[in-house]
Amino acid sequence: MSTLFEDLSLIKAKRPIVHNITNYVVMDLTANALLAISASPIMAHALEETEDIIPLASSVVINIGTLDNHWIACMHQAIKIANKLNVPVILDPVGAGATKFRTDTILTFLQENKISVLRGNAAEIMALAQVNIQSKGVDSQYAAEAARDASQFLVDQYKCVVVVSGATDTVQADNNIAYVKNGHAMMTNVTGMGCTASAIVGAFCAVNSDYFTASINAMAAMGIAGELAATQSEGPGSFRMHFIDQLYLLNQENLQRAKIEIKS
Amino acid sequence: MSTLFEDLSLIKAKRPIVHNITNYVVMDLTANALLAISASPIMAHALEETEDIIPLASSVVINIGTLDNHWIACMHQAIKIANKLNVPVILDPVGAGATKFRTDTILTFLQENKISVLRGNAAEIMALAQVNIQSKGVDSQYAAEAARDASQFLVDQYKCVVVVSGATDTVQADNNIAYVKNGHAMMTNVTGMGCTASAIVGAFCAVNSDYFTASINAMAAMGIAGELAATQSEGPGSFRMHFIDQLYLLNQENLQRAKIEIKS
Amino acid sequence: MSTLFEDLSLIKAKRPIVHNITNYVVMDLTANALLAISASPIMAHALEETEDIIPLASSVVINIGTLDNHWIACMHQAIKIANKLNVPVILDPVGAGATKFRTDTILTFLQENKISVLRGNAAEIMALAQVNIQSKGVDSQYAAEAARDASQFLVDQYKCVVVVSGATDTVQADNNIAYVKNGHAMMTNVTGMGCTASAIVGAFCAVNSDYFTASINAMAAMGIAGELAATQSEGPGSFRMHFIDQLYLLNQENLQRAKIEIKS
Repeated sequence: MSTLFEDLSLIKAKRPIVHNITNYVVMDLTANALLAISASPIMAHALEETEDIIPLASSVVINIGTLDNHWIACMHQAIKIANKLNVPVILDPVGAGATKFRTDTILTFLQENKISVLRGNAAEIMALAQVNIQSKGVDSQYAAEAARDASQFLVDQYKCVVVVSGATDTVQADNNIAYVKNGHAMMTNVTGMGCTASAIVGAFCAVNSDYFTASINAMAAMGIAGELAATQSEGPGSFRMHFIDQLYLLNQENLQRAKIEIKS
Repeated sequence: MSTLFEDLSLIKAKRPIVHNITNYVVMDLTANALLAISASPIMAHALEETEDIIPLASSVVINIGTLDNHWIACMHQAIKIANKLNVPVILDPVGAGATKFRTDTILTFLQENKISVLRGNAAEIMALAQVNIQSKGVDSQYAAEAARDASQFLVDQYKCVVVVSGATDTVQADNNIAYVKNGHAMMTNVTGMGCTASAIVGAFCAVNSDYFTASINAMAAMGIAGELAATQSEGPGSFRMHFIDQLYLLNQENLQRAKIEIKS
Repeated sequence: MSTLFEDLSLIKAKRPIVHNITNYVVMDLTANALLAISASPIMAHALEETEDIIPLASSVVINIGTLDNHWIACMHQAIKIANKLNVPVILDPVGAGATKFRTDTILTFLQENKISVLRGNAAEIMALAQVNIQSKGVDSQYAAEAARDASQFLVDQYKCVVVVSGATDTVQADNNIAYVKNGHAMMTNVTGMGCTASAIVGAFCAVNSDYFTASINAMAAMGIAGELAATQSEGPGSFRMHFIDQLYLLNQENLQRAKIEIKS
């Protein structure tokens, strides 16, 4: 199992291309987060060029935050090509459970394709496992623990790694579960931090084909950058800026803040 | 009439969902502004999910900054459902007067539906009242006063609250008019501050069904955050960051900076 | 030949409208950069309003970063109207060479219309000149020098100014070439800095009809703001903020940092 520092060093050495089909709100933040960690973001969505782009990419991140039918077609095509080329696909089910349109779209993606990592918040993951809950926007704060069973159900059903973000992040795969206890409450006051986590998972999966470990390391990197940024910030505006700086400044020393617990 | 602090406290307590169909340029800023003030933003536009989303929302903010026909359909559907459910609709007529396409779209929205609050700059408001002026982009600085008659015409015609942003903001409803004298000239150097004002009006209308008062309080909150941010800033980049922090830091003490004058 | 300070003073005096049809990722950054330098950005893309908007604009910036067929139609229409009205068109071929879709779109724009300035990185410019290279995302760092021949080919073929961004920027037109040696490596860690350069070229071309000189001055202004911002920054997050501030703070004194070398 590679360490967080080993993965980060590989990202810095390889500058892997991470292709994103994501929502309008977070394109700027996620592209900057990927650049800050030394990955090379591409954001593109035209059906006409997907076949040219996926072969350039070391991972593909699909995020349904501002979904519509045109984008579904692009996303589905990208996933299919990525599957054919064995490029890992990270799926962020923003707002699953809040609308049937979103839940159905994600379930179709999961049922018809190979998804490497599914990363959502507890409400989204529970909705996808058909656990009956009431979703309250995209920033709801359900305890990550409550979603563990839902997460395991999805792991079993779709053979993917499932990451549930929360005060403690959980990463589940096969019969393994890991807890990542980094991060800061201020992260919930900035839009797109979950989406950014999915993009960073994409950067780690681009250099580490053990997607369980890659996801753990990505979530720890996110959390550490968040902790360090919080100590410098007056509010969510300055936090967001320092967060990008801290992703850029991650190094062997500050990565020792990682609080990872793995059970198998 | 509830005070600014009472409204803000309600927003912090309830974290109301504010649904936004807005332009690409400002989605990031407005979502962050709403989160900073403790509202819960949703940004979504698919026809397929509007019926699921509006019932979750305590207010709906429609902004035509980067309009096209596909988005008009989404907006119109969202307004109709919101009207049926008595969810307040805030309308931001970005660029009305600059193109016939925008003016006509907004007039159609106003004529066929119930709009709770219309918030624009003086050029936009005058164009909608068919006062003949030359619009010069979205950041023009017409004196708010010059738009007062146009504003009153729209109040009478469409039975909505009309807010005109400027050095002094005016808020008009029925036969009442309020002046909000907070704010800072640096706000005109950041894109989307008007759009952000509309989103913040959405947050206040989500917790206060007296939309006249809610609009006054929202504009004062914007202006106070702007004044406080300006004292910390070297230019529009740092201003924007501090503005989000200052929205987050609004409290009973600094809200006493409010300069509100109401005439009825 | 007007100086950088003269051009900047004209922008501040005239606040020219720069119309942008650009990609989702950078709309926010480029609009803020234009405002910071005192230009008036419009971002709009609907076919229904292009005829109303282009006459308001002093320059038009077209950027294909998140291209699809709907946007191609808007872009093409805008270029045609701008050509008819003699409004300068700045074209940013983001990702040309990475996909056939992008290369073909840009070549069609160049072949069927009058483009005033084409600004890209070396990989993009070489791809458009049909030099066979492997494009690696949008942030690749090819030496600008390697693209000089490709650039000259495009100048001859399409009678436009060609700007190649890099550690040293080159600006070519007719038989003239200029080198701009301002800038900072941190600029490559922020998404959309190339797109911002194109927007700033748009601001300078809006007030200076000598597009060769306008492009040189714009690239120097970008680079100087970048150098000054880098001295204040911990990483790409704070750099981006300070960069906007420094664009706003450009003045006769700090513009003397310009390192421009012109050969004819």
